Amino acid sequence: MLTLFHACHSRSTRIVQLIDELGARDRVEIRPVTIPRRDGSGAPDAANPHPEHKVPLLLHDGVPIRESNAIMQYLCELFPEAGLAPMPGQPGRGPFLSWMAWYGNVMEPVYVHSFAGLEHPLLQTTFRGLPEVEARLAEALRDRPYLLGERFSAADLLIGSTFAWMPEATPDVAQVKDWAARCTGRGAARRAAEYDARLAAG
Amino acid sequence: MLTLFHACHSRSTRIVQLIDELGARDRVEIRPVTIPRRDGSGAPDAANPHPEHKVPLLLHDGVPIRESNAIMQYLCELFPEAGLAPMPGQPGRGPFLSWMAWYGNVMEPVYVHSFAGLEHPLLQTTFRGLPEVEARLAEALRDRPYLLGERFSAADLLIGSTFAWMPEATPDVAQVKDWAARCTGRGAARRAAEYDARLAAG
Repeated sequence: MLTLFHACHSRSTRIVQLIDELGARDRVEIRPVTIPRRDGSGAPDAANPHPEHKVPLLLHDGVPIRESNAIMQYLCELFPEAGLAPMPGQPGRGPFLSWMAWYGNVMEPVYVHSFAGLEHPLLQTTFRGLPEVEARLAEALRDRPYLLGERFSAADLLIGSTFAWMPEATPDVAQVKDWAARCTGRGAARRAAEYDARLAAG
Repeated sequence: MLTLFHACHSRSTRIVQLIDELGARDRVEIRPVTIPRRDGSGAPDAANPHPEHKVPLLLHDGVPIRESNAIMQYLCELFPEAGLAPMPGQPGRGPFLSWMAWYGNVMEPVYVHSFAGLEHPLLQTTFRGLPEVEARLAEALRDRPYLLGERFSAADLLIGSTFAWMPEATPDVAQVKDWAARCTGRGAARRAAEYDARLAAG
């Protein structure tokens, strides 16, 4: 039994998209919960078993799995036939793990620091900044359509979701903009957005 | 061919310890490189293929794998018989992935923000703070010796390495202090420290 705790228009929307990409929509119950929103609406939801009431949270037979990149990797392992991630021992496994970790270790902190207007030598030494994030994406996509090569993977979904959420942050580099458009233009991305719109409308 | 680019007394020391824990010391070449140090010594090393000259970086047959949590997961998959990580489909896989991701997504940013003295509402909503990090560790270790249960895993090594590096940051909670002492007192941890001391001595 798989249950995703999801808030519309949040970091869990990409998990809804992934479940669709995996062809697993009938295998996962999606349970909508509330979260506090920047406009002051919403509130932590007692029905959300995440200890800090964050989303996404996945329950698998009662075992909680948290953190977007971990949940995505876990779901890809449950549904390997979808080909959304190289499995252990397959070519591309190391780069796949690297991108999934880099998203959470580097990319998300760097964007949060940037939006918050925070600067500090320790942030630079630990995470680096936007120029380095953009350079990593630009060089990875210089000669291939997706981060791992010819084929869309969960790493594109996760990292590309940043630019679905904040299109204005998309690096001004042709191959990155084209890649972001490929990621956010997918049928599963559109369906996840439509699902969220229905949830938001109540 | 596996090559670890390593700087003594850095985030790559935990990878040296993991390689020892995996019984893989004769399977991985460790190549020492320099990094800039807080005291002004050291410099980025052109021999380090990481695009930002960070450590650790692992090369496997020429393919770079970066980010500590990704490298550790990758090495655990290469040497599954060591039992340092549940493999896909095994019990504990979800919690293992969650802790590995949580370290990079949450724990490391929270400690960096704390040391840098940075506060901002966006940091709190995205990462939360030290009280939440300490609460997650305390509740996980309330009734078991290691994060996943009875057995030491790469998640303990990664997360516990924080308190080897900065013992003064260890949460003042008995079960967390005991766990940190178990993690940092291991033979492989001692041998990695001795290896680093020899490197530092030149």
